[in-house]
Amino acid sequence: MPEDVVKWFQANLQYNVPGGKLNRGLSVVDTVEIILRRPLEEEEYKRAAILGWCVEMMQGLFLVADDMMDHSLTRRGQPCWYQVVGMVAVNDTGCIEAAIYFLLRKYFRSEPWYIDVVEHFLETTFKTCMGQMVDLMTAPEDRLDISQFSLERHRITVIYKTSWYSFYLPVACAARFCGIVDPSTYSLAQSILLPLGEYFQVQDDFLDAYAHPDVLGKIGTDIRDNKNTWLINKALEICSPDQRALLEANYGRKDPEAEARVKAVYDSLDLPERYREYERRAHAHIVGLVNGIPNTGELRPEVFMAFLRKIFGRTM
Amino acid sequence: MPEDVVKWFQANLQYNVPGGKLNRGLSVVDTVEIILRRPLEEEEYKRAAILGWCVEMMQGLFLVADDMMDHSLTRRGQPCWYQVVGMVAVNDTGCIEAAIYFLLRKYFRSEPWYIDVVEHFLETTFKTCMGQMVDLMTAPEDRLDISQFSLERHRITVIYKTSWYSFYLPVACAARFCGIVDPSTYSLAQSILLPLGEYFQVQDDFLDAYAHPDVLGKIGTDIRDNKNTWLINKALEICSPDQRALLEANYGRKDPEAEARVKAVYDSLDLPERYREYERRAHAHIVGLVNGIPNTGELRPEVFMAFLRKIFGRTM
Repeated sequence: MPEDVVKWFQANLQYNVPGGKLNRGLSVVDTVEIILRRPLEEEEYKRAAILGWCVEMMQGLFLVADDMMDHSLTRRGQPCWYQVVGMVAVNDTGCIEAAIYFLLRKYFRSEPWYIDVVEHFLETTFKTCMGQMVDLMTAPEDRLDISQFSLERHRITVIYKTSWYSFYLPVACAARFCGIVDPSTYSLAQSILLPLGEYFQVQDDFLDAYAHPDVLGKIGTDIRDNKNTWLINKALEICSPDQRALLEANYGRKDPEAEARVKAVYDSLDLPERYREYERRAHAHIVGLVNGIPNTGELRPEVFMAFLRKIFGRTM
Repeated sequence: MPEDVVKWFQANLQYNVPGGKLNRGLSVVDTVEIILRRPLEEEEYKRAAILGWCVEMMQGLFLVADDMMDHSLTRRGQPCWYQVVGMVAVNDTGCIEAAIYFLLRKYFRSEPWYIDVVEHFLETTFKTCMGQMVDLMTAPEDRLDISQFSLERHRITVIYKTSWYSFYLPVACAARFCGIVDPSTYSLAQSILLPLGEYFQVQDDFLDAYAHPDVLGKIGTDIRDNKNTWLINKALEICSPDQRALLEANYGRKDPEAEARVKAVYDSLDLPERYREYERRAHAHIVGLVNGIPNTGELRPEVFMAFLRKIFGRTM
């Protein structure tokens, strides 16, 4: 490849893959250590970290694509990639994706679990695309219409768009890395990590509206951006006809006063208290699932408790 | 998935995958028959055709993406998909891609060559994205500048953007399907099919400018669209400084008079005759390569001659 093309590929990866909190990538390494019950040796660490970076690359390419579809302006404190380079960003998402499978092949081709990890990435990509499709069809970019919103559609969106790649994929990668092959172990991981991811996203939705901007690190824009959040869906479920009319007239407007009117409906419906109630139940439900796991299984409860501790009570 | 989402996925596939000439998909089936030296039975045909459709799906997703990056208006006689649905088309390319790996897994997971075919698709995707990147960087969408054009960059673009997925991928799929495992057979296929694809694309570039629109089935727009073609690169290689200035001033303009001035330079440089010369050499070179193959090998000369016959002397 000509030098300018190589440089472009490097710039694409550097701009779009690092720069986040790296929770997904780090959780691959952390989970491997929990499964093996020991710190990793240098070479092991490097290989687990490569799998972690592959998860981060998947996150990176979806963020580039989402920002194009949402017409977003900034991401991680810098202009969105497509704002910098234009529509070429469509091809750049393909290049980041290709880099995942390049790395998997380069480092893991001789592993007995190589094809399984490739399939985890391919299937997770499919599920994430489907989640994005549900989201786009529920809250289309080109018209304000919350009539399609519902808690059930929100749940499907969240599980497909977030849970699979953010929670299940890192653990599945770690389990493959440790040589776990029993399909029931992977089903078990799904049964806990998908609800965990749902809870994480509901919390994210709550924090967008109710966390202090100094703590959140940004000003929440879900209401003005017409986002399909747990809050708007919970509000629509329990509101009066008058309140519904207010929400329909004001949700998704760029106007700060419209946003304040939506927020006032949220407050009058006690959404913060209802969120706390949701959180208590979700936390108890997940802890119950985790406690049902035998400590002698291939995935010990600590794999999941480590995730839950990071999420529960977070403020950003 | 909710019904409206399933319908959207169906519409996406139906709009973007059929409708072309299906040469790539059909060549999978044709090549299998040539390798096996017999017509296929019904179930065999179906399975080979599924592989063929996977190649067509890959073509479909790249056309959707290319049209967005080129700001094109129509494709295969209908509005481009992104013109119909907007930026959601970015996610729709991911859905078409995911469908490829879904079908491969559904129908071929138990085959010993399953992972090899998955890798052929993944690696071909990578190469096609790289080709697209070279093309976009040589002829950027946002400025008219033919200073980066060269026959060497054109060659890299064509091989990566077209040859791999249009010529090598179908044959590699057919060879895997027939149980061929020897890596040298795949190297041999590459050594012939990549130059064959290059010749095909140069011919495509020539026909865009010189085929009669009634025969071509469309009016060529490569000159006004600032496309990096064999013709402009050949012209730049052999023109005088005055002619170069003319080309620089007029190439890529939407103005029909500017287009006519470029065409006049092409004519005065005898490009049709030079193309015929190129075609004679390319054809002889490929026939020479094919004649070097032993008739006892796993891929007989007829595999390649079938391609060459379809391409040589075509008028559209």
